Amino acid sequence: MKLKSHYLIKPDQKVKLSRLETSEDGGFRSQEAAAAVLVKHRETLAHLQELLYAGQQRAVLIVLQGMDTAGKDGTISHIFSGVNPQGCDVASFKVPTPLEARHDFLWRCHAMAPPKGMIGIFNRSHYEEVLSPRVHKLFSAKEARAKMDEINDFEEMLVNSGTVVLKFFLHISREEQTARLQARLDDPKKHWKLSAADFKEREFWPDYEQAYEDVLNRTSRKDAPWFVIPADKKWYRNLAISEILVEALKGLKLDYPTPTVDAAKIKL
Amino acid sequence: MKLKSHYLIKPDQKVKLSRLETSEDGGFRSQEAAAAVLVKHRETLAHLQELLYAGQQRAVLIVLQGMDTAGKDGTISHIFSGVNPQGCDVASFKVPTPLEARHDFLWRCHAMAPPKGMIGIFNRSHYEEVLSPRVHKLFSAKEARAKMDEINDFEEMLVNSGTVVLKFFLHISREEQTARLQARLDDPKKHWKLSAADFKEREFWPDYEQAYEDVLNRTSRKDAPWFVIPADKKWYRNLAISEILVEALKGLKLDYPTPTVDAAKIKL
Repeated sequence: MKLKSHYLIKPDQKVKLSRLETSEDGGFRSQEAAAAVLVKHRETLAHLQELLYAGQQRAVLIVLQGMDTAGKDGTISHIFSGVNPQGCDVASFKVPTPLEARHDFLWRCHAMAPPKGMIGIFNRSHYEEVLSPRVHKLFSAKEARAKMDEINDFEEMLVNSGTVVLKFFLHISREEQTARLQARLDDPKKHWKLSAADFKEREFWPDYEQAYEDVLNRTSRKDAPWFVIPADKKWYRNLAISEILVEALKGLKLDYPTPTVDAAKIKL
Repeated sequence: MKLKSHYLIKPDQKVKLSRLETSEDGGFRSQEAAAAVLVKHRETLAHLQELLYAGQQRAVLIVLQGMDTAGKDGTISHIFSGVNPQGCDVASFKVPTPLEARHDFLWRCHAMAPPKGMIGIFNRSHYEEVLSPRVHKLFSAKEARAKMDEINDFEEMLVNSGTVVLKFFLHISREEQTARLQARLDDPKKHWKLSAADFKEREFWPDYEQAYEDVLNRTSRKDAPWFVIPADKKWYRNLAISEILVEALKGLKLDYPTPTVDAAKIKL
């Protein structure tokens, strides 16, 4: 099964998150069997990243979104530890700073867009603008749609300039979120990660679900697609995302660039 | 043997690079025995980086310098693949862009200084300003010393604001450079890495050696020290640098921060 097409949201698709899987095991007999495949994907990604870096012709932008505890941080550490940090930048977008808030919402994201040769990972992204403020009714559904059109234009421009844009929604169930927050409460070593906001935002689950459905419906485009990844099982989430990345990067047919120097003519 | 003190350049030390080792094996019986220690150091570094990120109180700036082919890229990929890329940024400083050249030489480096919670790796750095232009006589030795004083002030300011500054000179012999360039010439897969400049700059080896000695003499300070690492053996270079990093980060006594939320009071 090609995961890239399986979890793809097609441009004309009408998404209902409640109808999409959150828990899946991909038919693996054991977590160990899947772990071996993840190791292979990581090695392949490390190699493809080297080709990307050598060629300096294409960039890759990976957008990670999901409810709190959906596993954005874990996805980054599990899939990208192993990739040369010189070729991979992570940008984490938090509540905008006063300066950022005085700019259009795409400003800070554009600044962090990966240059050619690099993989850029957005841990949260420009999509936050049409999520939390939307849920808290800081603007209307119509205004949100206008912002999403700006997002589409922005991403299209990045694609036109050689960037591969891949967007992942890490799809967890509300029960799984409860379990993960409970696990953090139960483990004193994880208490520093807790914030009162996580528990408050949780009350707005159905509104976030609605906001995400609008995002997926309106901004999954042929050249900047969304993938909705079943993320209740962390190991499966890592496997699925890494597999889609490998598939997408292999499709670029990357190769080492032509040497600028004729090695045969050089004598040391 | 404590490598951190062994390879440290003391502030009052008069450095002659020709008297410092380029090839060392640290008494390891085999490369495999050393590899096992490197794996352990990488795991420790990954853990210490997590504490650094959680605490957001300190930053770590690692400066890598060395002659062409000394192994700056290899040091990064071998030691820092395995560290969560979310907590580790690499800045590679090339020939200044026109905009960069219109600023003071510290401007572009200051912009890339790691914020609290992060490890920042400079692949080449603000020290380039007192190396190649110095060798090619774009300014005098006196002007170079003035720039080095500016560097000292800049690094002192970073240290005062909570950044740990650790600087590594990867010390290879000229014979080893010859061997590495020859290996690149012999391997068609590495021809894309070749540039005519590498072969030209090589002619200035003694001048670079002199420029580096001045740098080491003038800018190794108690709180922003240089380490001269024997780097002919790549595996030993990785081992030594990772060991010094582990020692330095352990010295910070990092710990998880105090939780902002009373977990006992939260019911899901």
